[in-house]
Amino acid sequence: MKINFLTLFPDMFSGVISSSIWKQASDKSAVNYEVIDFRSYSDNKHYKVDDYPYGGGAGMVLRAQPLFDAIEDVKRKERSHSRVIMLSPQGAPFTQQKAESLAKEEHLVFVCGHYEGYDERVRTAVTDEISIGDYVLTGGELASMIVADSVIRLLPDVLGNHTSAHEDSFTTGLLEHPHYTRPAVFRGMEVPEVLLSGNHAHIEEWRRKESLRRTWIRRPDLLQERILNQQEKEWIQEFEENERC
Amino acid sequence: MKINFLTLFPDMFSGVISSSIWKQASDKSAVNYEVIDFRSYSDNKHYKVDDYPYGGGAGMVLRAQPLFDAIEDVKRKERSHSRVIMLSPQGAPFTQQKAESLAKEEHLVFVCGHYEGYDERVRTAVTDEISIGDYVLTGGELASMIVADSVIRLLPDVLGNHTSAHEDSFTTGLLEHPHYTRPAVFRGMEVPEVLLSGNHAHIEEWRRKESLRRTWIRRPDLLQERILNQQEKEWIQEFEENERC
Repeated sequence: MKINFLTLFPDMFSGVISSSIWKQASDKSAVNYEVIDFRSYSDNKHYKVDDYPYGGGAGMVLRAQPLFDAIEDVKRKERSHSRVIMLSPQGAPFTQQKAESLAKEEHLVFVCGHYEGYDERVRTAVTDEISIGDYVLTGGELASMIVADSVIRLLPDVLGNHTSAHEDSFTTGLLEHPHYTRPAVFRGMEVPEVLLSGNHAHIEEWRRKESLRRTWIRRPDLLQERILNQQEKEWIQEFEENERC
Repeated sequence: MKINFLTLFPDMFSGVISSSIWKQASDKSAVNYEVIDFRSYSDNKHYKVDDYPYGGGAGMVLRAQPLFDAIEDVKRKERSHSRVIMLSPQGAPFTQQKAESLAKEEHLVFVCGHYEGYDERVRTAVTDEISIGDYVLTGGELASMIVADSVIRLLPDVLGNHTSAHEDSFTTGLLEHPHYTRPAVFRGMEVPEVLLSGNHAHIEEWRRKESLRRTWIRRPDLLQERILNQQEKEWIQEFEENERC
């Protein structure tokens, strides 16, 4: 997969690209990153990329021309189909399903503007507009890294045996159960006995129940769309009764 | 404000901390960043920070001891109250209100683990557990930068006149209206006439209407909690009628 980041702050990417799973993915040739300062595409003699908004108001607006030219140039260089992703608070909320869809592509182009605003016409040059959440950021750079990170880890052969892309939160529709590692007692806090029992059927059941309990307590919204099996219905009844006591 | 990042991948932060608004905030002494590799707190002679999960299963679990000791150490060094924020998919969904609450603090500590899992007992050492969205990431580093970015821009004197923290999406409860800048015609696409009219009352009305329209089309969920005024009700009726035609 080829990933282009179009940004005015290319330095923001250097530490991330050369660390952790990002570096591993690139070492394995699963991904090839290219960070491009789209200021270099400006047709203005001072390489200006922003200008005052028509109609007045605070804040500068990103001009359409540099982004149009940058997008066209990076698309031309790749022979495959390109998904051009604009990060913006007005975009569709990002989901794990979207990450899975993007992971099947050969070329992703991330357009990182300032949340101050893109010239509206830039939207005609993109295929996807994504928001990573309902909060305000200073720019699209970190948001694009969030989206890219969630995609990179899904690429074939990127995650090693130490982890698994398919048992995580949001792929099962429930939050994960609690994890424990040694020591069995830490500062007076004990590991639940069942986890030390060696009884794998009991452990598996405990984990499914605690996963459901955690979701029921913290994110009941996730349960609304779920079709519960008989066992899960009984557990939820039990949680509700415990709460009443 | 003092911000500590506790991480196993300190290099991921270098480019972000030294760019854009992060650098400006630190140059103005509004923030002081310190990135700490919590591996250095491990009491293990090989500085091991993870171990196999009790009860078996894929993935390694972060040990409680290094994180407990690191959190206690950074809290001890600050005399102010500390908010200790764990990034995790099991956390409370991050919101703009949460960013505003964190922006009032003097000391933030971000605990960046691997989403594989923290030892459950680490949760007793934190004050807040935050999820930035319902998607899976390889670690808490990028998520912590998202939260920090949204907080830093709210600190007094950090944003200049070129932008405004109070007119953004999610602070008004609606998505932002479209922006345009020069030229008036770009690749055949024209700027809406009203924005060139100089009539500020009309421009203001157009912007409020387009902001509502965009929210109605893209994020109807945001309108469900909103108390609409008479004008907004009429506009929505108009959008609905247009859609039927």
